[in-house]
Amino acid sequence: MDKLYFASDYQEGAHPAILQRLTETNLEKSEGYGTDAFCASAREKIRRACRCPEAEVRFLVGGTQTNATVIDSLLRSYQGVLAAETGHISTHEAGAIEFGGHKVLTLPHQFGKISADDLRDYCRSFWSDGNHDHMVMPGMVYLSQPTEYGTLYSRAELEAIRQVCNDYRLALYVDGARLAYALACPENDVSLSDLARLCDVFYIGGTKCGALFGEAVVIPDPGLIPHFFTIVKQHGALLAKGRLLGLQFDTLFTDDLYLQIGRNAIAAADAIREALRAMGCSLAFPAPTNQVFLCLEDGALARLDEQVVYSFWEKPDEGHTVIRLASSWATNAGETDQLIRVLTQIISAP
Amino acid sequence: MDKLYFASDYQEGAHPAILQRLTETNLEKSEGYGTDAFCASAREKIRRACRCPEAEVRFLVGGTQTNATVIDSLLRSYQGVLAAETGHISTHEAGAIEFGGHKVLTLPHQFGKISADDLRDYCRSFWSDGNHDHMVMPGMVYLSQPTEYGTLYSRAELEAIRQVCNDYRLALYVDGARLAYALACPENDVSLSDLARLCDVFYIGGTKCGALFGEAVVIPDPGLIPHFFTIVKQHGALLAKGRLLGLQFDTLFTDDLYLQIGRNAIAAADAIREALRAMGCSLAFPAPTNQVFLCLEDGALARLDEQVVYSFWEKPDEGHTVIRLASSWATNAGETDQLIRVLTQIISAP
Amino acid sequence: MDKLYFASDYQEGAHPAILQRLTETNLEKSEGYGTDAFCASAREKIRRACRCPEAEVRFLVGGTQTNATVIDSLLRSYQGVLAAETGHISTHEAGAIEFGGHKVLTLPHQFGKISADDLRDYCRSFWSDGNHDHMVMPGMVYLSQPTEYGTLYSRAELEAIRQVCNDYRLALYVDGARLAYALACPENDVSLSDLARLCDVFYIGGTKCGALFGEAVVIPDPGLIPHFFTIVKQHGALLAKGRLLGLQFDTLFTDDLYLQIGRNAIAAADAIREALRAMGCSLAFPAPTNQVFLCLEDGALARLDEQVVYSFWEKPDEGHTVIRLASSWATNAGETDQLIRVLTQIISAP
Amino acid sequence: MDKLYFASDYQEGAHPAILQRLTETNLEKSEGYGTDAFCASAREKIRRACRCPEAEVRFLVGGTQTNATVIDSLLRSYQGVLAAETGHISTHEAGAIEFGGHKVLTLPHQFGKISADDLRDYCRSFWSDGNHDHMVMPGMVYLSQPTEYGTLYSRAELEAIRQVCNDYRLALYVDGARLAYALACPENDVSLSDLARLCDVFYIGGTKCGALFGEAVVIPDPGLIPHFFTIVKQHGALLAKGRLLGLQFDTLFTDDLYLQIGRNAIAAADAIREALRAMGCSLAFPAPTNQVFLCLEDGALARLDEQVVYSFWEKPDEGHTVIRLASSWATNAGETDQLIRVLTQIISAP
Repeated sequence: MDKLYFASDYQEGAHPAILQRLTETNLEKSEGYGTDAFCASAREKIRRACRCPEAEVRFLVGGTQTNATVIDSLLRSYQGVLAAETGHISTHEAGAIEFGGHKVLTLPHQFGKISADDLRDYCRSFWSDGNHDHMVMPGMVYLSQPTEYGTLYSRAELEAIRQVCNDYRLALYVDGARLAYALACPENDVSLSDLARLCDVFYIGGTKCGALFGEAVVIPDPGLIPHFFTIVKQHGALLAKGRLLGLQFDTLFTDDLYLQIGRNAIAAADAIREALRAMGCSLAFPAPTNQVFLCLEDGALARLDEQVVYSFWEKPDEGHTVIRLASSWATNAGETDQLIRVLTQIISAP
Repeated sequence: MDKLYFASDYQEGAHPAILQRLTETNLEKSEGYGTDAFCASAREKIRRACRCPEAEVRFLVGGTQTNATVIDSLLRSYQGVLAAETGHISTHEAGAIEFGGHKVLTLPHQFGKISADDLRDYCRSFWSDGNHDHMVMPGMVYLSQPTEYGTLYSRAELEAIRQVCNDYRLALYVDGARLAYALACPENDVSLSDLARLCDVFYIGGTKCGALFGEAVVIPDPGLIPHFFTIVKQHGALLAKGRLLGLQFDTLFTDDLYLQIGRNAIAAADAIREALRAMGCSLAFPAPTNQVFLCLEDGALARLDEQVVYSFWEKPDEGHTVIRLASSWATNAGETDQLIRVLTQIISAP
Repeated sequence: MDKLYFASDYQEGAHPAILQRLTETNLEKSEGYGTDAFCASAREKIRRACRCPEAEVRFLVGGTQTNATVIDSLLRSYQGVLAAETGHISTHEAGAIEFGGHKVLTLPHQFGKISADDLRDYCRSFWSDGNHDHMVMPGMVYLSQPTEYGTLYSRAELEAIRQVCNDYRLALYVDGARLAYALACPENDVSLSDLARLCDVFYIGGTKCGALFGEAVVIPDPGLIPHFFTIVKQHGALLAKGRLLGLQFDTLFTDDLYLQIGRNAIAAADAIREALRAMGCSLAFPAPTNQVFLCLEDGALARLDEQVVYSFWEKPDEGHTVIRLASSWATNAGETDQLIRVLTQIISAP
Repeated sequence: MDKLYFASDYQEGAHPAILQRLTETNLEKSEGYGTDAFCASAREKIRRACRCPEAEVRFLVGGTQTNATVIDSLLRSYQGVLAAETGHISTHEAGAIEFGGHKVLTLPHQFGKISADDLRDYCRSFWSDGNHDHMVMPGMVYLSQPTEYGTLYSRAELEAIRQVCNDYRLALYVDGARLAYALACPENDVSLSDLARLCDVFYIGGTKCGALFGEAVVIPDPGLIPHFFTIVKQHGALLAKGRLLGLQFDTLFTDDLYLQIGRNAIAAADAIREALRAMGCSLAFPAPTNQVFLCLEDGALARLDEQVVYSFWEKPDEGHTVIRLASSWATNAGETDQLIRVLTQIISAP
């Protein structure tokens, strides 16, 4: 295929160190379901990186699966999960949360982020509503860092949201599908240990951040979810060869690889953003991470389509489309340069 | 208690004819689960009233139960139900639809009503979204007639919505919890036979319209939902003494009682509305049926509270509250007059 | 209809005192959803009858609904409910428990009863199984008193089961759909206060015991199930006119009516049993309450069919059928005599 | 670790050809979610191997997940799945089927297999039961080939089961988690094309048969399950980098690798079985595939424990334990010989 692929950050395989170790250890025998030595080592490294020596760490396969499993395990049947109306669980998980019996209670967003104020208003309004016993009780908050729009919560914003969670007894859960791209972003001031301090549960994304697949769920308070192993099994989310997940996360958390692996993607996205700005093309959302959103007139989009694989995002009106271009840990400088050349041609064309 | 009750239309028991027949037939023996002669007779009368001689008619106990059961039976697991964001299933059923595994997909509303245009836009946007296979597919539409805001769909509006349902293969379901108050309203132009012609399923409300309890589900195409009896049982919605439901609906559909039973409530609500307008007090929503919504300053509300039982509706801002006053088939003229006197005092007070 | 009805104990309406009070109070206005004065009074009387002044008491409409709601509220997602393989939830609730996401873990039965020993073996075997983290954890026990076979647990048997529940941290729930027929049975030594002492939750059946409909859920430890009201609503089990339930149970618990209402049924069933034994016809199960089970050759059954409405129970082999004859609080002596005459003819016929 | 691993067939990584191709193609870019060229090629090869050119083929990650997803997609809400009481879905999936709302209806087994006669009796009994509308309707049959006990259905047995499925309108689904070990077994007479001819859905296991992970679902009639993609997503079973699954199955179905990969395991298991028989040790079940079940006295088991990793199977009584020893595609002859030596020592010890 000769097109340029900027559709997503899960187009390639894994960091070469992962494939090398998979190959080297291929015929080693290990116990199943995450009880092996690779998982034990990965857990220990993640605990250290999060400065949370007691944390429970579990490895699951994919993001939707992880969200559904964690959310089901944190909520009682009569509770729902608060999320931005643009949150992944609100829009692109095919009803996986509802399949588990829970309502997604949506909040307004600004470029994918919810605010502590809106969250507080929702809770205050719920609890002061004379009919709230007939309504779905908010039981937890779902955030993504970075968000689906590529934006970041600041540490201060997360602390403010945590405060509301404390006031209204909500669990706080952060979806870190693209967490490496937050951690590598110069604008970011939220560390792994901040997440461990502020969240009830969060996950460190592997699939989009250098692994073949896999997400590491961190539960800072290890007694929080009894029988989580069985819950994972019940959700069809328990990998028989758990070792595969352990090995990948062990590699990603050796020598701080996870903290660095996103840098290349940020550099590529920054270059694309800068070039677009130089062409006078305004970006659709102010996203500092590895996703670039731009709005194209449909004629320009048709020309782009011939040379670039991108993601559809939304149609603001007839005649225009917002698209996403995503870089990854594996994007190389040549591809980025080529993409910029294509964009320049297209956007400056009459 | 000496307060005036205008909180809802389910404060009293049943039309006296129902209690009389219950008493007369109390020791008659009949088969269970709706297989008795009372149910057979009620079904026949409802079919005739709907001019739909083939319709399947089933009797359930309450509204939330009926909505959850019907919606589960019409949707496949990957589908959701479209409803106004103010619809009863969206707000006041404690997540009963999600408990069954389905997402409520919300549409904007005007005074509780959705429009055919918004419905069409939603469907067009869904099917043209490049990611729609990752999203909850709209599978049916939920409406209420009258709506939760007391407003009415016109026949033309329902026909336009039906047209969108045809175009996008959506089932159309109408919640008629308060249907008697629509049928008795001079503004209404939607008959039972219109509903039977336009809906895939609708229910005729008993609980709020003269019965002790009970809702009659009408499925104009009798082959539409195989094994509905078992689905009802599975939802805990099958009444052992089904005869009780049959007897009540048989009574309500004898001599057109159901078509007339709402008139008294409309007259009472009209009198209240007229009095409020005469005081210069504007109504919160333009509702022509048995629910009156008004916005009161909190001081006035506190005074009302001493004399009247009403329903909290919403808080538009600090200092004001929208409340609901509902009349019923059993409201008597003396109560209405008294309420108007109380309102006059409170609203004209400094 | 001229046939004799002995198919079930829910063929008639309600005790006349209930209908009389319904009629007298029909136009009284009351608040909805069980917050009214009738419910408050009924709760108080039930607490007194159970000698459990702190108990939480809730009124639901029917048995399957009550079982599904209580079981969902007591279990975590990874837990199942232990029940006799003949238990109502195991067989005749159309999958209502599984609809809520829970497995029914079945135990062997003797005439509908489980034993403390079998229960202990199951739990011991589960917890000693090396794979138990991949299995459904037993979280509670479901019993019925009387059972579906009309048999009774003795107080000693219930205490032994309670002991196992304590040892393995299981909640104990008793389905009392026909509880009045246990309480009225001379063989019974389990009182309401025994149930309150031994169970985490139990329900006092109304539908089959003199009410039009309704079941009273008793939770002796009132903090056990937070937000039970909302759970009930979510299950479609919240009756708008909750007053109807309160009034019925208030009547049933006035002057010990509930303790006496089953006596007539026991007398009738005893007469039938005695007559059958006198004819040399052996009973299918040793049931001392209001249900009589007998096995008939299919030719005899065809003759019975012409004169008596009975319940199909099971087919032990080609050529024979076990049927159930049930008496109720409303069965009169004339009917019982007639039934015995019919049985005599049929069974003594060549 | 120096122990011998015979606990399961998922202790190692993947066939080396898979790792090599993963490494070679690591930085190739491809579209997500199974829409890539590797998946297309694998689908085509599987269709050819099944002689079913129209079949729909989908790739999922693990067995429990696949079972839950397929079963939910084949059943309506009021239906359950028939399975051996020893079936994986009946015992070791932590309630994943019930989580989706469905009851597992169990049948007796002989060494893990159900019979067409028992299946027919169940269905006949269900449909002739006067109360079947209150019960869970059987909607499909679940089998595993080989079974959890390592036994095999013959072609004639599957045809007889299919006949019952036709007679009672049941879908037939075969779990082929270990299918390669059936296909490689001399006793087996069921080919992939037999499965495609007899089943509504079956899956070809990868995880235990040479892949890192992955199961290929085959739906011979491609219109059978509309929107299966979305159902997979909703179950959290859609792998972002679908290419990984395509590449693995493409490799396994190149040059008939899948048909041969099990031979080594069968040879190893046959050697162990022969040795045990020679020692006079009778096997627990007559299993001809890659699983060997034997019953050990607990003293012997303690000695085995020091040198061998095995699987607990069940405790037939105090003092004895049935264990499972499983070989795999990767078991080498040296390990097998060592295991036989250890077993000889232990079993011949006083």
